[in-house]
Amino acid sequence: MSHIAVFGAGSWGTAFASILADGGNDVRVWGRRPELVEQLNRGVNDDYLPGVQLPDGISASTDPAEVTEGAEIVILSVPSQSLRTNLTEWAPLLGDKIVVSLMKGIELGTTKRMSEVIHEVAGVPAERIGVVSGPNLAREIVQRQPAATVVACPDVSAADRVAAACSTSYFRPYTSQDVVGAELGGAVKNVIALAVGMAAGLGFGDNTKATLITRGLAETTRLAMALGADPRTMAGLAGVGDLIATCMSPLSRNHSFGVKLGEGLSVAQVTEVTKQTAEGVKSCASILDLARAHGVDVPITEMVNRVVHEDFAPADMVEVLLARARKHETE
Amino acid sequence: MSHIAVFGAGSWGTAFASILADGGNDVRVWGRRPELVEQLNRGVNDDYLPGVQLPDGISASTDPAEVTEGAEIVILSVPSQSLRTNLTEWAPLLGDKIVVSLMKGIELGTTKRMSEVIHEVAGVPAERIGVVSGPNLAREIVQRQPAATVVACPDVSAADRVAAACSTSYFRPYTSQDVVGAELGGAVKNVIALAVGMAAGLGFGDNTKATLITRGLAETTRLAMALGADPRTMAGLAGVGDLIATCMSPLSRNHSFGVKLGEGLSVAQVTEVTKQTAEGVKSCASILDLARAHGVDVPITEMVNRVVHEDFAPADMVEVLLARARKHETE
Repeated sequence: MSHIAVFGAGSWGTAFASILADGGNDVRVWGRRPELVEQLNRGVNDDYLPGVQLPDGISASTDPAEVTEGAEIVILSVPSQSLRTNLTEWAPLLGDKIVVSLMKGIELGTTKRMSEVIHEVAGVPAERIGVVSGPNLAREIVQRQPAATVVACPDVSAADRVAAACSTSYFRPYTSQDVVGAELGGAVKNVIALAVGMAAGLGFGDNTKATLITRGLAETTRLAMALGADPRTMAGLAGVGDLIATCMSPLSRNHSFGVKLGEGLSVAQVTEVTKQTAEGVKSCASILDLARAHGVDVPITEMVNRVVHEDFAPADMVEVLLARARKHETE
Repeated sequence: MSHIAVFGAGSWGTAFASILADGGNDVRVWGRRPELVEQLNRGVNDDYLPGVQLPDGISASTDPAEVTEGAEIVILSVPSQSLRTNLTEWAPLLGDKIVVSLMKGIELGTTKRMSEVIHEVAGVPAERIGVVSGPNLAREIVQRQPAATVVACPDVSAADRVAAACSTSYFRPYTSQDVVGAELGGAVKNVIALAVGMAAGLGFGDNTKATLITRGLAETTRLAMALGADPRTMAGLAGVGDLIATCMSPLSRNHSFGVKLGEGLSVAQVTEVTKQTAEGVKSCASILDLARAHGVDVPITEMVNRVVHEDFAPADMVEVLLARARKHETE
């Protein structure tokens, strides 16, 4: 039985801990708030996954050292923008462990991917930094609905170890070496889901939404390739797969957030109603910065950024995107 | 003002006629049944698009010669499996016109694409045969919801002429030279939509559906490339775009048909309830034959075929597809 540490007790961190427990591992979850840790020790997470009974094999603590002691794999699932601060404290605990990011953001200011922040702050070599990304809505995962995912790591044997740990009857990991592709797919899809949500909130139909998803995939692929990713990753589970699940599902926070923006609420109003900010709202500026730094055209991300940060109207956003002149499809 | 002939007064033929009329063309529609022709001449199509008021500029007739006389473009939108028979009669009328297929099937027995049947039966050179395909649910098109599409033809100037004819404020055609890719995307997506519908009918969630769509795109791309298509077409509107729209929408006949199969009805029962057979049900055998002839692995199409033609249970189909062992994602 492997011992695996999971940092972060949000919905995806908790769902992934459940997969690992179902996979036969001894899972220890770190949470910041004592009351949430206490819930996990009772086998529930009423804050993020109300009504769900977690499997046996999960214990929780607010003490990072207690959680990591003896672990061979450490999973990180904290808010993207606080990873750097958190890691500064946790770095000495990571030793020679395999460190896996479940996070889907790009750091503001530095435009770094989460694996880059892990490497920089904790000194973990790239060969031991993995990423898990795919069409994995947490709420369906804890219901043990069948799902597949990508476990990416430059070192194939490390990817295999992580994949073996999270393989269950309902969760099927495929290994890959394309960390950049998996991270970009995961991050940009939240921004595209905001745009698709806005179109839905404005009353547009499935033709329009499918068109936005298709162009969103194209701009994600352009950006990922500029950063060295394999285009096949974007055509797979961590690319189009995750994008479709996020844009189809009423369970996606980014899509739902976009729907409310499309219906006419402001970012502040939606944040107040939903009590949380969607990842795409936080990441759209850093993804745009990243694209500009590499000279990549990302029209949907640019428009979402204007809606989020410049009070641009969603209706104008959709109109601009649909009116974009382009003669030959692959030009 | 161009005169354009449209053969076929089903939902997509009628919707495309509406686009052409909104594009300022004089549109003449051929219909087989006098009562449907009479409806079109009153500006409605209650059989296929109930409640919709068609734009001015559309007239209809049961006489193929009347419809084609003076037309520079002929649009074909009849059932795939009856194209050959129909064309035998219409061939002398096609002269030097540009002939455009809106059809999404593969001919049973011969495994020919619709453009190949047109070339073979009517002797139209490939340079004058075009295909229109994209995320274009007919019901949304006639509501003038924004949509984009691909107009493919080996001859760029012919593609441009067709694109110019169907360009409106809400319908945006992109040109391409990849006829094979556009046809394959349109045909296989109906089979994938059946599979995704079955998963939905069985109660599976969006993670599972997104995984099936992703793998469906992969098998469509493999088959299309084996036939000489450009993989970029599959990543565009006629590939992933059309696939997503078809798999997301409650308006898709193939998806709805699959849902009922997943809920436990037989093909015969669903056909009786819906009064029509979905295109994917008709085409899955010919697409499987085509894949086998080119040595391409199409597991989803194979399973759908077993459900449709061999009474294989949809639940077993989904289980087999999700259990398929594959270690590295791009293997």
